[in-house]
Amino acid sequence: MGVGTESWVVMATARSPTNIAVIKYWGKRDESLILPINDSISVTLDPDHLCTTTTVAASPAFDSDRMWLNGKEISLSGGRFQACLREIRKRAHDVTDEKKGLRISKEDWQNIHVHIASYNNFPTAAGLASSAAGFACLVFSLAKLMNVSEEYGALSAIARQGSGSACRSLYGGFVKWVMGNDSSGSDSIAVQLVNEAHWSDLVILIAVVSSRQKETSSTTGMRESVETSPLLHHRSKVVVPSRIVQMEEAIRSRDFASFASLTCADSNQFHAVCLDTSPPIFYMNDTSHRIISCIERWNKLKGTPQVAYTFDAGPNAVMIAPNRKTATDLLCRMLYYFPPSPDTELSSYILGDKTILQEAGLKSMGDVEALPPPPEMADKLTSRVSGEVSYFICTKPGQGPVLLADENESLLHPQTGLPK
Amino acid sequence: MGVGTESWVVMATARSPTNIAVIKYWGKRDESLILPINDSISVTLDPDHLCTTTTVAASPAFDSDRMWLNGKEISLSGGRFQACLREIRKRAHDVTDEKKGLRISKEDWQNIHVHIASYNNFPTAAGLASSAAGFACLVFSLAKLMNVSEEYGALSAIARQGSGSACRSLYGGFVKWVMGNDSSGSDSIAVQLVNEAHWSDLVILIAVVSSRQKETSSTTGMRESVETSPLLHHRSKVVVPSRIVQMEEAIRSRDFASFASLTCADSNQFHAVCLDTSPPIFYMNDTSHRIISCIERWNKLKGTPQVAYTFDAGPNAVMIAPNRKTATDLLCRMLYYFPPSPDTELSSYILGDKTILQEAGLKSMGDVEALPPPPEMADKLTSRVSGEVSYFICTKPGQGPVLLADENESLLHPQTGLPK
Repeated sequence: MGVGTESWVVMATARSPTNIAVIKYWGKRDESLILPINDSISVTLDPDHLCTTTTVAASPAFDSDRMWLNGKEISLSGGRFQACLREIRKRAHDVTDEKKGLRISKEDWQNIHVHIASYNNFPTAAGLASSAAGFACLVFSLAKLMNVSEEYGALSAIARQGSGSACRSLYGGFVKWVMGNDSSGSDSIAVQLVNEAHWSDLVILIAVVSSRQKETSSTTGMRESVETSPLLHHRSKVVVPSRIVQMEEAIRSRDFASFASLTCADSNQFHAVCLDTSPPIFYMNDTSHRIISCIERWNKLKGTPQVAYTFDAGPNAVMIAPNRKTATDLLCRMLYYFPPSPDTELSSYILGDKTILQEAGLKSMGDVEALPPPPEMADKLTSRVSGEVSYFICTKPGQGPVLLADENESLLHPQTGLPK
Repeated sequence: MGVGTESWVVMATARSPTNIAVIKYWGKRDESLILPINDSISVTLDPDHLCTTTTVAASPAFDSDRMWLNGKEISLSGGRFQACLREIRKRAHDVTDEKKGLRISKEDWQNIHVHIASYNNFPTAAGLASSAAGFACLVFSLAKLMNVSEEYGALSAIARQGSGSACRSLYGGFVKWVMGNDSSGSDSIAVQLVNEAHWSDLVILIAVVSSRQKETSSTTGMRESVETSPLLHHRSKVVVPSRIVQMEEAIRSRDFASFASLTCADSNQFHAVCLDTSPPIFYMNDTSHRIISCIERWNKLKGTPQVAYTFDAGPNAVMIAPNRKTATDLLCRMLYYFPPSPDTELSSYILGDKTILQEAGLKSMGDVEALPPPPEMADKLTSRVSGEVSYFICTKPGQGPVLLADENESLLHPQTGLPK
């Protein structure tokens, strides 16, 4: 293996986006390979605002595979990590590092341990699909390190074994996870429908909702739904296949009204199936319901969908506006209904792309307090209660994983292979 | 008509129970006749705790049909009231009142106006199926007044035209509303499965949940579900028919575990279908969810259902315990999780059958404050927040409508026919 000393370290650092499904994945037909019972479609979120950065390092000096998440060492013993490591190692190729004067052969990779450091630029616990970005980034960076030549589709099938929705984070833009038919899972892969430039007008606003409840993990939740919900089977066999066709068409033709109707209906149906599970699963709370009601009233007033909303396995709302103008209208509504606490600074209440604040004409908390009630509230009384939303993140559709060439961005020391 | 003076007034007063569905009715196949898309099954609640009392009076001196609900005059112009009045008048028979020296012929009834006074012994706005008790009582008392000879099944088909679920309030015990096939609705009637003595051990605890939200009316809600929910059709055609068979068997054999599983699953599925509606309908709120979670955790600890829960078109929980002992355990849990506000008296927090308080060993607010956390909470922290539940009502399965012979109980003056 290589030449000379055994103290070398090779590394790769990558950044991967998270994604949010607009046609939901809920239910596995194979628990260990993570094969879904229906296709799903997602939009990839701009990694500038929500992403995982992962550095993987390999060295003959490492005693074992190790991983650090947000600076804290975590166990790699889980079957999901092991599956990703095993599948990537299987596909490793010879690597030559001329600068270091190294040649690592295909076979060598089987015996070299890796160190992995991963960091989310958003709160892990906030329920923002950190495992999707995480496993996508793990697989992508390992594949780069080990010179895996497989296409992104094949990589997505590996990431899928880490976390189902991770397969969709291998691409930017709009992505479809094809459920596939093969029992090996080899055809259960992600495909890009359109890249992030196709529908770049879209603006995405995420409301991170405060919650005092511990949620059912999505793994447990979907298993229980598969076992007990009489409605899930009908959803996966009858409803979703037709929605997938309609959603693909809506995305290709940038038909926002259809896109929004399908997105909202599918989010609600996913939560309906959770409620139809025994015991029932509640991911949305009263704040989630209020957000939906606000948007539905607005949509009704206008006679056509202004904004789409979708909720994953938690109370956070992901809202999608067709353009900047509507996004500012949305932001004003959200800040009217869900103002920050009096002691919060506006700039820490709206994260991500903060330029939306200027576009909305909001410079200070005084501007937020002076917001008029939206016209659809004309005949209704509503109280402006702060504290229901922790903060908002403004973002947009984004690109897939990228390799970060700058060694300064790596999370591991180039010499020791330990967290910086 | 009659003899002598035209100033006579004839009256009848009746009391009718409300009911709560354990297999839910949601969706009409005929809006004006109120014909459902599936069978439903309910338990009639003890009218001592929840009932409507209605007095109907007829007199040639009345200028028009008039009605007072809880002392306030309301319009009878709605199609639903008109349908009930028309169908009952159609079936009127000769009435002889020997005391008053009167004979009212079958034909006379078509031209005599009626006064109706109705009173609920529970808050109308609390979402406790007041319209079911109300229309059942209206039809029952009118039928008595006009000497209608039809059986209760035929009367139930008339009450159904006032409010669908009212048809099930024509009987005590457990009642099935058979959807029927005929387009006239003549076979869409209620039948008694078992009377209230069959399963008299059951104890019913209702949590009237505080809500700041105005709910979608069930009429509007079910119309929108029929028009937009892709899951409702599957529920009504596939899921409910098999649940009806299982529920009837569970009731006949007093199999509480099956009864509870079916009741909870069907309540949750009804709310799932509401969520699958566009725009989605939310009847349960965070407090409803917390009540469900409390019961599900308890059931899980015990390995078998201790208590059933069901929710109608609102956030209130109706909980059914198999016996007094379990009901006291349930009450203690509810008071642990949802204590009354400090300024509330215990006796105004538990309404209906208050003897449950003594059986639970709860004499004062001090006893409530001293309640230990339930064992299923052992490893969890929970806050005891007051104000989420307005009050509880303890009741049991009860009897169907009865005629009240005592004139003191009538709500109208025997001479003027106006509210007392």
